[in-house]
Amino acid sequence: MTDHLKPGSTIGILGGGQLGRMLSVAAARLGLKTHIFEPSADAPASHVAYRVTTANYDDTNALVTFARSVDVVTYEFENIPTEALDIIESICPIRPGRRALAISQDRIAEKAFLSQIDIKVAPYAQIDSVENLQAALTTIGAPSILKTRRFGYDGKGQVRITDAGDAESAYAALKGAPAVLEGFVNFEREISVIAARGIDGAVVCYDPGENVHKDGILDTTTVPATLAAGQHMDAVLMAGKILNALDYVGVMGVELFVTPEGLIVNEIAPRVHNTGHWTQNASVVDQFEQHIRAVAGWQLGDGQRHANAVMTNLIGDDVLSYADFTGAGLHLYGKADVKPGRKMGHVNRISPIE
Amino acid sequence: MTDHLKPGSTIGILGGGQLGRMLSVAAARLGLKTHIFEPSADAPASHVAYRVTTANYDDTNALVTFARSVDVVTYEFENIPTEALDIIESICPIRPGRRALAISQDRIAEKAFLSQIDIKVAPYAQIDSVENLQAALTTIGAPSILKTRRFGYDGKGQVRITDAGDAESAYAALKGAPAVLEGFVNFEREISVIAARGIDGAVVCYDPGENVHKDGILDTTTVPATLAAGQHMDAVLMAGKILNALDYVGVMGVELFVTPEGLIVNEIAPRVHNTGHWTQNASVVDQFEQHIRAVAGWQLGDGQRHANAVMTNLIGDDVLSYADFTGAGLHLYGKADVKPGRKMGHVNRISPIE
Repeated sequence: MTDHLKPGSTIGILGGGQLGRMLSVAAARLGLKTHIFEPSADAPASHVAYRVTTANYDDTNALVTFARSVDVVTYEFENIPTEALDIIESICPIRPGRRALAISQDRIAEKAFLSQIDIKVAPYAQIDSVENLQAALTTIGAPSILKTRRFGYDGKGQVRITDAGDAESAYAALKGAPAVLEGFVNFEREISVIAARGIDGAVVCYDPGENVHKDGILDTTTVPATLAAGQHMDAVLMAGKILNALDYVGVMGVELFVTPEGLIVNEIAPRVHNTGHWTQNASVVDQFEQHIRAVAGWQLGDGQRHANAVMTNLIGDDVLSYADFTGAGLHLYGKADVKPGRKMGHVNRISPIE
Repeated sequence: MTDHLKPGSTIGILGGGQLGRMLSVAAARLGLKTHIFEPSADAPASHVAYRVTTANYDDTNALVTFARSVDVVTYEFENIPTEALDIIESICPIRPGRRALAISQDRIAEKAFLSQIDIKVAPYAQIDSVENLQAALTTIGAPSILKTRRFGYDGKGQVRITDAGDAESAYAALKGAPAVLEGFVNFEREISVIAARGIDGAVVCYDPGENVHKDGILDTTTVPATLAAGQHMDAVLMAGKILNALDYVGVMGVELFVTPEGLIVNEIAPRVHNTGHWTQNASVVDQFEQHIRAVAGWQLGDGQRHANAVMTNLIGDDVLSYADFTGAGLHLYGKADVKPGRKMGHVNRISPIE
């Protein structure tokens, strides 16, 4: 650990949402400071950060000042403009690195990368026109899902195609954005592995969690996931393979489908992940601290869990019942306005392992 | 819960040390903001607070502005000047209330209060002169401890008297400060109970921890403490009695001696307490969140622990080994300078209950 950031150093975080907020708190626990870069005022992370820059990602001066004030930069979301990253990287390191970011920004690049390292993904085709889409539907078939290549999250930028005849309306719905057609995967369950890789190449994975979505948004993650022993190991090995192939530094969320034909990777996110929030109350070193440890060049912490856990998101009005959770780990994000579909907080309920 | 602070409200905290820092983080977890009032710049709590006022306790304008900007005021240390409290209380509530604060600021008042509610304390006498002290030594005897009535902590402001002939030099060592002579208690162990009382009068106690000091400073707290079942219950009932008698709102640290003649209360602290830091990694709702819940008028959380724990303070140079703690809960306070005897952080090691 000769090369790590000493306590008192500052980590720059791009994005001031709840993930940035919880990263800030984890950094503070390790005696590290954070500087948040975020376009909107009064963002959740700004309430607990050492320093905040409120500026847009095209504000070169602000980016330069920000990068000069910190020792390393990380991020809480993946859709950061390339130009902003170029400016920052000319001044200080960005972790996780640019390759992971580029891949996760583009569904085609992501699937190509995963296929290349022999990790199974859903059948897919690049879509740039209605003709394209019609042709792809003859091989991939329906039901299938048309997704924008970039900037999709929480079910946004997606259209489900149940019949090949829907091609035209589906394509129109994405308003000409470059897209990908994904074959529908008939999965038994969705799981995710929160994996971390240190600057020394060490990999630590948390036990896989089982995810249930509601209206396209994560509702619950339950740990342990219902998995055969072999599947547990497969999932962890796949996550490790992805991190190693990218020479990754930090925490990654890897979403997988469990199918009768084995595990299929649905998506990777080069950051702390909503499906890893359970670690806050069921592990001594949670995903946020693990990410901070990695980007600060510290040795990773123990990823063992000491309890079973169910994480439940508080979406929109759900948060109004916050007073009811006196026996669980309650985490509110400090967002001023309650809006439908908005992630306002989450609750972790833990129980003894067996 | 009609009268509680809604998420987004602000809690003012007097004092910006590590306790204020950890209170700030706990408040953030519940969607509450904190405003720290602290004379020194770059204090630990300032790194994670929503707002910071750097001013002295005799700065009336700063106190007024501070009190007007918050919904309730709490504190992380007990030696706050009365005038500052008067100014604040004319504008917004202070929790825990003034009586607890007055009692804990004065060892004589504390012992008188405890005796009055039939809680056993060490034999003691008020000391205002050498003659006083010599007389008191004839009844209390030696060994005994001469302590200043006010402003003592971590073994400061204390002189041990091993022989009645030391009276003069001991009295001189306290430089004429009003003092108390305490009979030496031949205890088997020191324990503490971290107890909380809500605005609705509900009391929640954490399991007693067993404390070991080194050079007058807390070294470790181990939970569970080695206690007979009856002693465990006695300790918890005594803590509850103290909180109820004071109509207390918040967390209190109650230090007790376990003696062959039963439990003796050594000291009470009307705030979160170093001997309760283990709750951060062994309970879902830790002492900091519990205190915030109480002062915000929320229902208290579950004080159950899900693990055994050993908390070890990192004092002075101890902190330099921070990189070694990858399997434990590491908490660093963000203090810039390492000094001998200075609390720099702590480590919580947890293990399964049986």
